[in-house]
Amino acid sequence: MSSRPTIAAPAGNRAYTRVLRRFVRLGARDEVGRLLDRMHPADVVTILKTLAPAERKSFIDHLLAHERAGPVLAGLPETLVGEILAQVSDERITALVARQPPDEAADLLGLLPEGRADAILKLLDETTAATLDRLMTYGRDTVGGMMTTRFLALERRTSVSEAIARIRGEPDAEMVFYLYVVDEFGRLEGVVSLRQLVLARADEELHAIMNPKVIRVRPDQPRADVADVISRYNLLAVPVVDAGNALVGIVTVDDAIDALADETTREMYRMAGLHTEDRVSSPALHSVRRRLPWMVMNLGTALLASWVVWLFEASIEQVVALATFMPIVAGMGGNGATQTLTVVIRGIALGDLDFSSARRTILKEVGVGASIGVATGVLMALVATVWKGNPMLGLVIGLAMIINLFVAGFAGAAVPVVFKRLGLDPAVGSGVFVTTFTDCLGFLSFLGLATLLLNYLV
Amino acid sequence: MSSRPTIAAPAGNRAYTRVLRRFVRLGARDEVGRLLDRMHPADVVTILKTLAPAERKSFIDHLLAHERAGPVLAGLPETLVGEILAQVSDERITALVARQPPDEAADLLGLLPEGRADAILKLLDETTAATLDRLMTYGRDTVGGMMTTRFLALERRTSVSEAIARIRGEPDAEMVFYLYVVDEFGRLEGVVSLRQLVLARADEELHAIMNPKVIRVRPDQPRADVADVISRYNLLAVPVVDAGNALVGIVTVDDAIDALADETTREMYRMAGLHTEDRVSSPALHSVRRRLPWMVMNLGTALLASWVVWLFEASIEQVVALATFMPIVAGMGGNGATQTLTVVIRGIALGDLDFSSARRTILKEVGVGASIGVATGVLMALVATVWKGNPMLGLVIGLAMIINLFVAGFAGAAVPVVFKRLGLDPAVGSGVFVTTFTDCLGFLSFLGLATLLLNYLV
Repeated sequence: MSSRPTIAAPAGNRAYTRVLRRFVRLGARDEVGRLLDRMHPADVVTILKTLAPAERKSFIDHLLAHERAGPVLAGLPETLVGEILAQVSDERITALVARQPPDEAADLLGLLPEGRADAILKLLDETTAATLDRLMTYGRDTVGGMMTTRFLALERRTSVSEAIARIRGEPDAEMVFYLYVVDEFGRLEGVVSLRQLVLARADEELHAIMNPKVIRVRPDQPRADVADVISRYNLLAVPVVDAGNALVGIVTVDDAIDALADETTREMYRMAGLHTEDRVSSPALHSVRRRLPWMVMNLGTALLASWVVWLFEASIEQVVALATFMPIVAGMGGNGATQTLTVVIRGIALGDLDFSSARRTILKEVGVGASIGVATGVLMALVATVWKGNPMLGLVIGLAMIINLFVAGFAGAAVPVVFKRLGLDPAVGSGVFVTTFTDCLGFLSFLGLATLLLNYLV
Repeated sequence: MSSRPTIAAPAGNRAYTRVLRRFVRLGARDEVGRLLDRMHPADVVTILKTLAPAERKSFIDHLLAHERAGPVLAGLPETLVGEILAQVSDERITALVARQPPDEAADLLGLLPEGRADAILKLLDETTAATLDRLMTYGRDTVGGMMTTRFLALERRTSVSEAIARIRGEPDAEMVFYLYVVDEFGRLEGVVSLRQLVLARADEELHAIMNPKVIRVRPDQPRADVADVISRYNLLAVPVVDAGNALVGIVTVDDAIDALADETTREMYRMAGLHTEDRVSSPALHSVRRRLPWMVMNLGTALLASWVVWLFEASIEQVVALATFMPIVAGMGGNGATQTLTVVIRGIALGDLDFSSARRTILKEVGVGASIGVATGVLMALVATVWKGNPMLGLVIGLAMIINLFVAGFAGAAVPVVFKRLGLDPAVGSGVFVTTFTDCLGFLSFLGLATLLLNYLV
């Protein structure tokens, strides 16, 4: 067996955390520094995220003095980095930014208030400042906001041996597994993989071995697009070109993976009405402020359902068992709608569903909802008949459940499709819309049926 | 501007879909074949997923006759591939399997009934059959089930020029951006990147330029682990070693991305009680069968809530407005719990939360829940007072909401943490458990308070 480290197991991390905590508490700067030297930045991130606020603060003091602070900061949630930077001097941030690759440096500056970012840009050398300034003009959720400018672009007449010499000369270029071939105006013409370069003759010119069919993206496309392209076509990097086809940057697969994880969080968060930056580590007050509007809106929709019930107060007064069964109508409708919504929203996100197949999907979900409605409705009808000794009441709740799950299937499938068609995010509003709809129609059908058949119920 | 294709835009795909559909309907085999030649397999997958079942069937006939069927099948959902393979002859599957890289070939065989897979293994040449047989012993959700055996492993004394010659000789090895260095027993010693190879002198030996600190995984680890390692440490591939540290395979970043997307679907599906294979494209009957058990269980939990309400039927009989406000208690509690659950479950998945920070998180969520409870409770108390003209009723609903959101915050944070600690999946049971708990306690506090103060309400 090898005595070398295998992957950093959780147990190993816990041991590191304990040691690190002790050193941090003792203020043992040198020991912390030596630990940081030996750890992978990703492991430092893991530990940092689980430290208590007080420990975290003094650990960060140590970290910022260490030369590997940059990669660690790049792996932390943005809110946390924002808080950290707020407590650090301009000079220290400048030193940090100068050591970082341009995409990550621009991300760091983007977390600062505008005035402060400008001040730091002035402290940097002119070329770096210009690059960062340009990168910062792109929105954080765009391809431009995540691309790096450290790529290798060579002219088409470059020979293989010259290309290899150029790689040798640019130790900082990221992920040079692809070389990009450009014309004299910097316009993208093709791509050469490092493997092709290794296998080619030294005197061949790049245009002879390059692949001219390059999948490319634009800096103003949404970030999700490039992640999608990289994962769909199994790429290691994608070139970014401007409207004139000039190569302006590349996006690498590791950044695409981070973007995918972010998009996942967003998708799940949107369904629950949460703000992206509302994490376990964010301060309670931030979470309250961010969740409150959604909850107030939900209070509004709940009042709508409540208003439907109020219409039937007279019936409930006569048959109070109706109130007892209300949670069943609402609960089953809500669960059915959530299942359909999740399948359809995930289907849209994965590209399994487009408009040509939308009608089929809606029909299917209506059928599934109705079938589950019949199965659980019959079951509930029996339960209600036995419990309350009233088969008519059983019939009413059973029928109401069938109608409600039919509606849940329809709304759960149709609403996100319509949202998508209107260019809205299907995950955002669908949830509230669908559950309000199902709740109201559920109560309406249950209490409405009961009112129609009231003579048989009392 | 370049006239070369940029990324396959949705509009472009729609045009392709239309043309393809026409050719498929006309049975124009040659035209379909030519279209397939020109399209990227990933684009064929996109189109295939959105065809109607009848069109899909005849398109697949064309596809299987085409030599690029393999990469297309690899990109399709498993249920669909299973259905397709069920309709194809053993000979055709054998030809397909023989053309595929081993990991994908093993995946295909894994979708067949055991007897059929064995029959096909017998039709293959011995080496391929042995490799596939071994790969198939690993579970589909393990590292072994997703690794490929087409990697380049060279002995430590190999010179750089020999290594380059070896790359030339193995055009089939996947993603040769890393070469693995092994000892004479095949045990992993280090890794050399293609870039290091390009930059090294031709007569240097691999052990001199290799990096001996290799992050590695075991074939029996869960699939999610390797995806996590690749994304955390920004790798392009990870070597897989057995208990004796012998290199048995590699997992590449493109497969890790697919695994991450699958894990995301699972995480979202588990929260809604859905089976992984329940997709927009799966037949309605499958969906009904897979969702029914969850819905029956939910009927059970809804009956519990219903039983709580039943305890207070006498109070509702006297103050029927209590029934009117029940949807508000349940709705707000459910939404509050969902928000907390989503933040905490996502936090666990992203590694932002471990047991040392769990107590802090639970306290925070309780505080957030209570604060939102006070804000929306006061608002609702005012609404109820104005609507029903009874400030006491307002007080009861307001207090009940505060208690309920306090409980929702506590249960939403504590339950997934406890599930995780017990080694259970926090996403699976938490949802049902938490909403049942919140519903029951919500009704209990609302109707209980109302019963205590009944004299002031009637």
